[in-house]
Amino acid sequence: MAGPDVVDLGFARVDVDREARQGLPEVIYGSGKTPEQISGIVRTLLRHNDGPVLATRVDDDVATSVLAAVPDGAYDREARLLVWRPAASLGFGVVVAVAGTADLPVAREAAAVAAATGLDVTTVTDVGVAGLHRLLAEQDRLRAADTVIVVAGMEGALASAVGGLVACPVVAVPTSTGYGAGLEGVTALLAMHASCAAGITVVNIDSGFGAAMAAFRLARVARRRTP
Amino acid sequence: MAGPDVVDLGFARVDVDREARQGLPEVIYGSGKTPEQISGIVRTLLRHNDGPVLATRVDDDVATSVLAAVPDGAYDREARLLVWRPAASLGFGVVVAVAGTADLPVAREAAAVAAATGLDVTTVTDVGVAGLHRLLAEQDRLRAADTVIVVAGMEGALASAVGGLVACPVVAVPTSTGYGAGLEGVTALLAMHASCAAGITVVNIDSGFGAAMAAFRLARVARRRTP
Amino acid sequence: MAGPDVVDLGFARVDVDREARQGLPEVIYGSGKTPEQISGIVRTLLRHNDGPVLATRVDDDVATSVLAAVPDGAYDREARLLVWRPAASLGFGVVVAVAGTADLPVAREAAAVAAATGLDVTTVTDVGVAGLHRLLAEQDRLRAADTVIVVAGMEGALASAVGGLVACPVVAVPTSTGYGAGLEGVTALLAMHASCAAGITVVNIDSGFGAAMAAFRLARVARRRTP
Amino acid sequence: MAGPDVVDLGFARVDVDREARQGLPEVIYGSGKTPEQISGIVRTLLRHNDGPVLATRVDDDVATSVLAAVPDGAYDREARLLVWRPAASLGFGVVVAVAGTADLPVAREAAAVAAATGLDVTTVTDVGVAGLHRLLAEQDRLRAADTVIVVAGMEGALASAVGGLVACPVVAVPTSTGYGAGLEGVTALLAMHASCAAGITVVNIDSGFGAAMAAFRLARVARRRTP
Amino acid sequence: MAGPDVVDLGFARVDVDREARQGLPEVIYGSGKTPEQISGIVRTLLRHNDGPVLATRVDDDVATSVLAAVPDGAYDREARLLVWRPAASLGFGVVVAVAGTADLPVAREAAAVAAATGLDVTTVTDVGVAGLHRLLAEQDRLRAADTVIVVAGMEGALASAVGGLVACPVVAVPTSTGYGAGLEGVTALLAMHASCAAGITVVNIDSGFGAAMAAFRLARVARRRTP
Amino acid sequence: MAGPDVVDLGFARVDVDREARQGLPEVIYGSGKTPEQISGIVRTLLRHNDGPVLATRVDDDVATSVLAAVPDGAYDREARLLVWRPAASLGFGVVVAVAGTADLPVAREAAAVAAATGLDVTTVTDVGVAGLHRLLAEQDRLRAADTVIVVAGMEGALASAVGGLVACPVVAVPTSTGYGAGLEGVTALLAMHASCAAGITVVNIDSGFGAAMAAFRLARVARRRTP
Amino acid sequence: MAGPDVVDLGFARVDVDREARQGLPEVIYGSGKTPEQISGIVRTLLRHNDGPVLATRVDDDVATSVLAAVPDGAYDREARLLVWRPAASLGFGVVVAVAGTADLPVAREAAAVAAATGLDVTTVTDVGVAGLHRLLAEQDRLRAADTVIVVAGMEGALASAVGGLVACPVVAVPTSTGYGAGLEGVTALLAMHASCAAGITVVNIDSGFGAAMAAFRLARVARRRTP
Amino acid sequence: MAGPDVVDLGFARVDVDREARQGLPEVIYGSGKTPEQISGIVRTLLRHNDGPVLATRVDDDVATSVLAAVPDGAYDREARLLVWRPAASLGFGVVVAVAGTADLPVAREAAAVAAATGLDVTTVTDVGVAGLHRLLAEQDRLRAADTVIVVAGMEGALASAVGGLVACPVVAVPTSTGYGAGLEGVTALLAMHASCAAGITVVNIDSGFGAAMAAFRLARVARRRTP
Repeated sequence: MAGPDVVDLGFARVDVDREARQGLPEVIYGSGKTPEQISGIVRTLLRHNDGPVLATRVDDDVATSVLAAVPDGAYDREARLLVWRPAASLGFGVVVAVAGTADLPVAREAAAVAAATGLDVTTVTDVGVAGLHRLLAEQDRLRAADTVIVVAGMEGALASAVGGLVACPVVAVPTSTGYGAGLEGVTALLAMHASCAAGITVVNIDSGFGAAMAAFRLARVARRRTP
Repeated sequence: MAGPDVVDLGFARVDVDREARQGLPEVIYGSGKTPEQISGIVRTLLRHNDGPVLATRVDDDVATSVLAAVPDGAYDREARLLVWRPAASLGFGVVVAVAGTADLPVAREAAAVAAATGLDVTTVTDVGVAGLHRLLAEQDRLRAADTVIVVAGMEGALASAVGGLVACPVVAVPTSTGYGAGLEGVTALLAMHASCAAGITVVNIDSGFGAAMAAFRLARVARRRTP
Repeated sequence: MAGPDVVDLGFARVDVDREARQGLPEVIYGSGKTPEQISGIVRTLLRHNDGPVLATRVDDDVATSVLAAVPDGAYDREARLLVWRPAASLGFGVVVAVAGTADLPVAREAAAVAAATGLDVTTVTDVGVAGLHRLLAEQDRLRAADTVIVVAGMEGALASAVGGLVACPVVAVPTSTGYGAGLEGVTALLAMHASCAAGITVVNIDSGFGAAMAAFRLARVARRRTP
Repeated sequence: MAGPDVVDLGFARVDVDREARQGLPEVIYGSGKTPEQISGIVRTLLRHNDGPVLATRVDDDVATSVLAAVPDGAYDREARLLVWRPAASLGFGVVVAVAGTADLPVAREAAAVAAATGLDVTTVTDVGVAGLHRLLAEQDRLRAADTVIVVAGMEGALASAVGGLVACPVVAVPTSTGYGAGLEGVTALLAMHASCAAGITVVNIDSGFGAAMAAFRLARVARRRTP
Repeated sequence: MAGPDVVDLGFARVDVDREARQGLPEVIYGSGKTPEQISGIVRTLLRHNDGPVLATRVDDDVATSVLAAVPDGAYDREARLLVWRPAASLGFGVVVAVAGTADLPVAREAAAVAAATGLDVTTVTDVGVAGLHRLLAEQDRLRAADTVIVVAGMEGALASAVGGLVACPVVAVPTSTGYGAGLEGVTALLAMHASCAAGITVVNIDSGFGAAMAAFRLARVARRRTP
Repeated sequence: MAGPDVVDLGFARVDVDREARQGLPEVIYGSGKTPEQISGIVRTLLRHNDGPVLATRVDDDVATSVLAAVPDGAYDREARLLVWRPAASLGFGVVVAVAGTADLPVAREAAAVAAATGLDVTTVTDVGVAGLHRLLAEQDRLRAADTVIVVAGMEGALASAVGGLVACPVVAVPTSTGYGAGLEGVTALLAMHASCAAGITVVNIDSGFGAAMAAFRLARVARRRTP
Repeated sequence: MAGPDVVDLGFARVDVDREARQGLPEVIYGSGKTPEQISGIVRTLLRHNDGPVLATRVDDDVATSVLAAVPDGAYDREARLLVWRPAASLGFGVVVAVAGTADLPVAREAAAVAAATGLDVTTVTDVGVAGLHRLLAEQDRLRAADTVIVVAGMEGALASAVGGLVACPVVAVPTSTGYGAGLEGVTALLAMHASCAAGITVVNIDSGFGAAMAAFRLARVARRRTP
Repeated sequence: MAGPDVVDLGFARVDVDREARQGLPEVIYGSGKTPEQISGIVRTLLRHNDGPVLATRVDDDVATSVLAAVPDGAYDREARLLVWRPAASLGFGVVVAVAGTADLPVAREAAAVAAATGLDVTTVTDVGVAGLHRLLAEQDRLRAADTVIVVAGMEGALASAVGGLVACPVVAVPTSTGYGAGLEGVTALLAMHASCAAGITVVNIDSGFGAAMAAFRLARVARRRTP
């Protein structure tokens, strides 16, 4: 019941054509899947594709089981990411700018996914706008980036500040950190959209993965245009 | 039907005791009131009190009628404020920091009300966080203030940035400028509350008046404590 | 009261350093500004910069007055955009994909701003997902783009569909078209964030301008990397 | 205290007239009920009606107890459904189209309830709009349906796409899958209502049951009109 | 730039294949379109299709201009609907049940669109649940319907009551009537989804058109199944 | 630090004047309080007042401890209510009308609090509007009431229906039952306010206590007026 | 098509049985109705009932036309109310307590409707909680009431304060006065529900009419119980 | 990678310049941090600063570990606060006014943080507006304060009442106590902003810490101005 581009595993129909279409195999969203399901999809993707295979939001114990079943993978506990066949460097520099300590888990997902897909990642932490001197001290590194991923919760103001400092693309990730008026990240998401800095773009709350994929799309178009 | 502290004008019962209780006569909210109603309340307040008498949110034509009926007042068109008997200086310095041009009407209400009640007001404009160099160029003036009123719409990030730069009280006014995700000022209000800068406080959307009154309360307590 | 990078016109403090910092002079948000204010800022930007000067959200009659005062500009009525010194082509192809007729005003702002800043723009209309054959008929053009700007209101589903069809960056603009459950664009904004397509990014409701500026940032980084 | 149409069990008053009125006995909402309560209601319904008796949202251990007390029933663990006396086929074809793996539990409730009431159900999985080729590959099956139930979370775009592909009734079920901007299914619900596809209808978040009952109403009216 | 199924008029790309695909030509959403645009699309649809051609949300003066340009149409002022070539009866009975007087404009759009597409429509008014005797007096007519469209604002309770009275499909249209807590129809929309009556479905706020199209889909499937 | 009307227990300052002021001693909100705290307040209230003493939202184990410490009280497990010195009948009849089984816990709190304060309570269950015949079968009992308390979740339509059937005061309690679009009771609360039945009033979500106290206020005013 | 209790005027079906059922003829909601429609309904109600006939939300010019067509009525411009045959006093005292001047229009609707249905109404103005001395000065009048209607916008705190001062029923009306965080009355509505005062009830935003009808229900039950 | 003002601990970059900039070392937000992380930051702050070092939101067991690692600190269990080197008195009087028992945890955080930074704190409990006599009994203490911190959940009305009673600054803290319409503190936050009392300011939901820091800013400016 599945065409040549789709492998039907019963519990999922795996899109093995995506690498050809979008330059990267389908990425597995691990949350809610059993080790057996993840292992099955990973094997399928490894067999039908050539590029990196990733599973996000994988907890420690699930990761151990999957790695036992499908060898040669690596687990990044802080990023909750499993990776097989990480990509070679595309020579595209991404800086992940993180507002506060509480935003680190999301930042690590962004950094690890970006690195696994071939981007060159640097992380800059604790640069929230309530301490502008710490942000300004990082200006040179930010300006040298091909793309900046801003990870910030609470009021999300870091996106506006970075947007005004750099000329390159800025992808903002609102996080669900903070409490009360932060509304689990909704306030940061809305604030980043209402930002006074022109041309910054936004992905879903806590979606380090989404930001990394947006950066990967950028890297590909930049690369395509390089003779 | 009103005690000694209240003068009943039929259409309103004027609280003439507030000056004694809070150091300032009742302020008239002009929106929706006729020139005759405003004039009547102004006369009552002038007669029963000694301090400044203010009417906010008064449009041009209403102001002209009221000033004709109750002489010796002054009208600030940009602030939409009518003032009689402005207060002498309390020697308390307030800086009104304004994110963008669209926030100016609210900033002017804050500045004019603060000045009429005896505060020494300076206004600093176009210091939104998307142009940090403009904000940083004003650091000295901000740090010299006894209180900073931050007026900002869109994502309201200026409040966090100023909160981190100065040690004095910061009163943030979200404005309803911007469109879409700004949600008529609700996003800025929530973002200012979720701010990563400790100890900043917030007043209602577009309430330049509220911020000025908060600053006036501060000035009084600072003055009371001065030998 | 303004450093060398800022020209103080009294009613505004113009950031004349932005061209150096971000590759493009400050863009004027025309809504709520008088013809005199817009003309003053345009003259300042033309004098202190070399690149294109733009004013967005300018109505017909205001545009006529401004063009009389500052010659050599051009007005695009459908986009409500004024442009002086449009940029030469950067050789970066942007396709603006529009869901329905009601989304056209926002799409035109995106297209006109992008063109004025040097991007090569094609517009594809009436490709909403309720008529997939019309969308699929445009696949080749979409896949040839360096970046796709998706403009869609109502449920915003076009962003997901395009995100799955192309490998390049996708910038989604939710619009306030539709009624009822569309909540003036908030539903489309949220839906685009919750999208099942990985790596698409989103800008503010109705912000054709924001999407164009995001594309301009992409074009610059792609160009920088081209030998 | 109950008329002939109502059987009062103390903890509930069972509507035994519904089969006559609406063609199907009352369906038991199992969540929060004890095995004894469910068993009591099931027995009452079996005794006073002739048609199928269903209990939804029943967990594994509760199901075991109820089946021990009231024999001849069957439990579908994935759908969390208990069924006695399933209906004979009405010859009405329903396709349940499912966007992603995470939507499967809701889809299974829809499919199992529909099947138990006599509908002929086919399920089509992993047809989210970010992979249009997988959806288009199923066009023939979708077009052959008498009704399509679309189960989709996140941005819910599948409803619009299917609504444009088929001529038959489309009942959309938003699910609470996804995170952040998905707002626990509210975004999908609103998006499905704002859909650009004409004539699709929507039921409550996660209500596979509601969609199945809507399809059953359709099947009955189609059947009534068949000579 | 348009395939054989699409006629490109410059300002719109008309989908002339929809009649073949869905049994009805594309319906024109008149709001925001000029008489010339509407006339152009109508002519195109009349030429390339055989069925009824409809334009909704058309104001009085626009209608007059369009009818002058494209003869043989009819305008229903209360429904704000223009119709050419109304369909012959499909023998499918729809009752439009209306809660209160304020809901009538939406009800009339539903009734007129349904009638133009070949459904047999009866309207029942003033049957809000605060006067149950008026609703119960209409029971027989409601039960004889093949489908009931419920149009109700405020708290939308009529949908639940009708859902419990009839066995046929119920399509509920929340309206934006009422004030305060009605939240412009959002309360009714949510309430109809949370309804305790099983199997009722809901369309967008004020979308009489959407309800009629849902009924048309039902009529087609019922007809298809009739020998 | 407390006047004669207030007894300061350290962890709470008990208002022992309320019985004189409002005809009933302060009622203890048990949630979050230790058995020792509840016992202390109960003893104080028993000593300084003559009327009934109540503690709401008390769990089973806490109740056992409190009753051991302060004898002569009674615990109603279903209502989670502790009562000492229940009031004699005021001869005022209250009917608690309950939409569905899931609303019973809230209804029981309403009924038990009302009974403890001297009201004559009857409970009518399973009268949701999706089964109007069950509601209509109870008309006589409802019309004989001095006040009806309506307890309903989901869409809350029962309040409108009862409001139209009876002439006496109707107090509606929205409950947090249901899922999805019910928004934890917010939908029912809004819907009850938007109701088409004139003169019904509403209390907080799940506040059986609030409804009982509203009924008690009614009973007192009715009694006061009885010679 | 209407039973004996309903008079069908074509544009409305008038419920002439309501007086018998609820002690008061149906009240006409004037907003959006033509003078002819209002006159027609008024005549019908006058003919088939004996009690007072009311039309609310009627503007000045409409009122003039209606009074010309149906003599012997009276118009209260401030309350926007038309009344024929006002009721004799029921001897039931209602105090309308108004927070501020801006709340007066809603308060006047409440007072005028209550008076027309036979209640004895007193209005107390300018008693917002920011000036507690003005509220406390009215304690005796408030405590003498059979029912207090509290009309308050902004934060709605007056309801809590009055609820704690009096023992009689309190019906709170949130108003849409104020700006920003007041959210057009939604904040006051929610705040009144979350009130710390036990047993106060709430009606819809700006519904002076709803509060008056709630008081009328109370007066009837109090009267019924008076020998 | 950190300038002289920042100490990089790997897991955090500590801002040791804040004491110079804002008069108080950085305060540690303990939630989510391990004892080792907290101990490390505390040691750094103690070494590089002279003033008080605080860690908020620290649970019992974490506190024990931290105190074992970094001696000479003190733990306030009710406030969940760790303090080293508490400040000497600044002679600035703060009254924390608490509406109800459930608001005490937030009030204790406010009081303990304020005391540790050198403010003279008094707490006044159980003064919610539903019992105005308890509030009025505390008027003298409230009026003697240099600043009042109001801690209130539910409808948050205490802020308005206190704002009208005192002339000094009022900082309002909405709390997430209550249920239903309280919306986890959002209702109180909005209501405090919409307050009819002029010049009160608001901090984030449950942020006793934020209110204390706002008071500390006030105390510093008052002190600075004292000769």
